[in-house]
Amino acid sequence: MSFESFFPVWDKLNTIQRNRILSGLITRQVKKGTVIHNGSMDCTGLLLVKSGQLRAYILSEEGREITIYRLFDMDMCLFSASCMMRSIQFEVTIEAEKDTELWVIPAEIYKTIMEESAPVANYTNELMATRFSDVMWLIEQIMWKSLDKRVAAFLLEEASIEETNELKITHETIANHLGSHREVITRMLRYFQSEDMVKLSRGTVTILDEKKLEALQDA
Amino acid sequence: MSFESFFPVWDKLNTIQRNRILSGLITRQVKKGTVIHNGSMDCTGLLLVKSGQLRAYILSEEGREITIYRLFDMDMCLFSASCMMRSIQFEVTIEAEKDTELWVIPAEIYKTIMEESAPVANYTNELMATRFSDVMWLIEQIMWKSLDKRVAAFLLEEASIEETNELKITHETIANHLGSHREVITRMLRYFQSEDMVKLSRGTVTILDEKKLEALQDA
Repeated sequence: MSFESFFPVWDKLNTIQRNRILSGLITRQVKKGTVIHNGSMDCTGLLLVKSGQLRAYILSEEGREITIYRLFDMDMCLFSASCMMRSIQFEVTIEAEKDTELWVIPAEIYKTIMEESAPVANYTNELMATRFSDVMWLIEQIMWKSLDKRVAAFLLEEASIEETNELKITHETIANHLGSHREVITRMLRYFQSEDMVKLSRGTVTILDEKKLEALQDA
Repeated sequence: MSFESFFPVWDKLNTIQRNRILSGLITRQVKKGTVIHNGSMDCTGLLLVKSGQLRAYILSEEGREITIYRLFDMDMCLFSASCMMRSIQFEVTIEAEKDTELWVIPAEIYKTIMEESAPVANYTNELMATRFSDVMWLIEQIMWKSLDKRVAAFLLEEASIEETNELKITHETIANHLGSHREVITRMLRYFQSEDMVKLSRGTVTILDEKKLEALQDA
């Protein structure tokens, strides 16, 4: 599929705007684990995921992580172009969770078009509102949900993304998604195992009882 | 001062758009403590604060609160018009923290203008990015900062807003701002008192040692 069919408001752009985007467009293929954008680097540009999976997270001074949102096929990432808007006063890191193919639209080009085009500006608004909703959901999780429920929800989410109950994931990675510590996650998973909800082996968490995990998540 | 001088992109609107806003505009005066908007109510509209102070917060099912951001003179509130954008999938409650005078722009009117006007859409983007930055700051606080630092920071912020070190505020209110429990806040404030940072009396927290609170906040 072509960029034109991926870009959401393509039919609202005039010829000059279309050419401006196409001439600046960069195609990238990145391996799983690549950090595509981090707050201290230059303004990377808007990322449009053709295929693969990205993760946006924040880092504490001590190097702890928490996942803010994830991006899948056809998703667009705005905060890798945060220089575009002066009111974006925070920094995210974006990493490929799988081998990923993506387009990069340089921030300056997108900014110029957004300033003159109401459809592009409104699309950007919807995009930001979507991420805002993700982040508000995250605050609710952190504030009101206990960690056992969050771990249960995370495992179920992973199983749904990966379409398997045998998750190749380390306790460290789960901790980094949830903003927790490895030791805490290990303790929680061992408890899940003792309750026959999962089976643990090196580098793998196998979900044995989806129903029980769902019940825990919704409790 | 008139609405025209408060509304940020007024000079970018045409006569039809200006008249549409002015004809729909509502002026409201609300007493301290009034809930102006809550998620389950109809779409209230955009709020523009003429004078006073508003607080936006979320509520857990059990009735716990946490402050998301606060609005002061000339600030605009978008999420009281969340029906305007389908991607806003969360609910905030907005309450007057002081007697407040404000304008309400009906959501339908703002939406129509935003859809056709790139400057209004881009202004809305900046507004959302500002709140997004507030919320990202909040996540960092919740995730990486211990409660003593957050209470110290909150007291200093209050003193700066109120321009006094004698804060008329209950432990319950502090807990509701920070998403904590009254008992926990009381224990923390008593510790602050034992360290001569504050003095406690009924309904009042007096800051005695600003420097020490600042040092704690930044530690």
